[in-house]
Amino acid sequence: MNSIESVREALLRFRDERDWAQFHTLRNLIVSLNLEASELLELTQWKRDEEIAALHRDADAREALADECADVFLYLILVADAAGIDLLEAAGRKLEKNAEKYPVDKCYGSSAKYDRL
Amino acid sequence: MNSIESVREALLRFRDERDWAQFHTLRNLIVSLNLEASELLELTQWKRDEEIAALHRDADAREALADECADVFLYLILVADAAGIDLLEAAGRKLEKNAEKYPVDKCYGSSAKYDRL
Amino acid sequence: MNSIESVREALLRFRDERDWAQFHTLRNLIVSLNLEASELLELTQWKRDEEIAALHRDADAREALADECADVFLYLILVADAAGIDLLEAAGRKLEKNAEKYPVDKCYGSSAKYDRL
Amino acid sequence: MNSIESVREALLRFRDERDWAQFHTLRNLIVSLNLEASELLELTQWKRDEEIAALHRDADAREALADECADVFLYLILVADAAGIDLLEAAGRKLEKNAEKYPVDKCYGSSAKYDRL
Repeated sequence: MNSIESVREALLRFRDERDWAQFHTLRNLIVSLNLEASELLELTQWKRDEEIAALHRDADAREALADECADVFLYLILVADAAGIDLLEAAGRKLEKNAEKYPVDKCYGSSAKYDRL
Repeated sequence: MNSIESVREALLRFRDERDWAQFHTLRNLIVSLNLEASELLELTQWKRDEEIAALHRDADAREALADECADVFLYLILVADAAGIDLLEAAGRKLEKNAEKYPVDKCYGSSAKYDRL
Repeated sequence: MNSIESVREALLRFRDERDWAQFHTLRNLIVSLNLEASELLELTQWKRDEEIAALHRDADAREALADECADVFLYLILVADAAGIDLLEAAGRKLEKNAEKYPVDKCYGSSAKYDRL
Repeated sequence: MNSIESVREALLRFRDERDWAQFHTLRNLIVSLNLEASELLELTQWKRDEEIAALHRDADAREALADECADVFLYLILVADAAGIDLLEAAGRKLEKNAEKYPVDKCYGSSAKYDRL
């Protein structure tokens, strides 16, 4: 896959070959995205910060991370598709909003939320 | 933005201008991804299936959906970056795995999990 | 079990017999609580509102619901224990706060969030 | 409040005074439980393990923790009520199941999941 558009096309074909569009309501897709995000979180369960930082150096753990990231990505593409959202455009606009909410001079080196800056 | 790579570059620049890489441990990024997925889920709270399906036709609701999708996307890119994962490649490989787990003839029109097929 | 205190005592004994207190940092417990909440959510995945409402009438589904509710409850008790919180007292105080945020005359029959009332 | 039953009664009264039972489908309650679990998780965002362990020593942070734990507890009680589950009984039975899955001699001092023991 060399673009988000090619992933999207392959994914919609995968869905339609199985007649799954009927299950892909916006609600179900958002719930499924959350469940996949949880599976990613589960890979960090019971681990200390250093162990998590080292996860991607273990081949099995790295494949598990890649698979869960992919699952989140695939559902995110389906959510965006169902809601008529262009992910690349939405990301660009959100980065602009974030740049306004988090001006460099106020939040350099700080992890405080924007409403506490 | 016209590619995931251009989003990634803008995002890393945004992060580095604020000296935020110090907070972006793999754990923190995965937790933040989960929190953003929850904010997306929150947009569906207390709503019936039909109301959720209609969300994207309301301009405000659609912007909220776009913003939350973008937040999930941005953290997903950061998680992948921290773990050395190529999202497009991971998505392509996961689709192949899913095609094996969910053969068309066994799961056409069924939402059963692969371990129940 | 006839009280939350008796569950708490049995749970701490279970933990200590296995020498698991070392893993039960506040962070790990909160993450685990979230993962169990997700497993509860997973029981609703791909189901329509009516199917979910009917879940508890199926014996297997009801046992699964009971098990996942129990898991959330057990981790919640551990989180409260680790943070020095009395759950019953906290619940009573939160109900009082909610009664102020959601006065009956303003929110009767409405699911609007308090900041939109 | 001195028992889970007294919290449950106060909570159902709170709900009925506002005519909210109509929104409290099993699905909505499970989603809301997940959202509250996320708010608890958010209290740990961007913090290192030691900072989280120290959270409950700060009065404001401790009140926030107590409030979020209470919110999870209140929704858990509503979920159990909607599904006809007795939380104390379910917790007792789950502890028995866990004792079988995690025998002391096999998992003493280990955080491995039961399917890896």
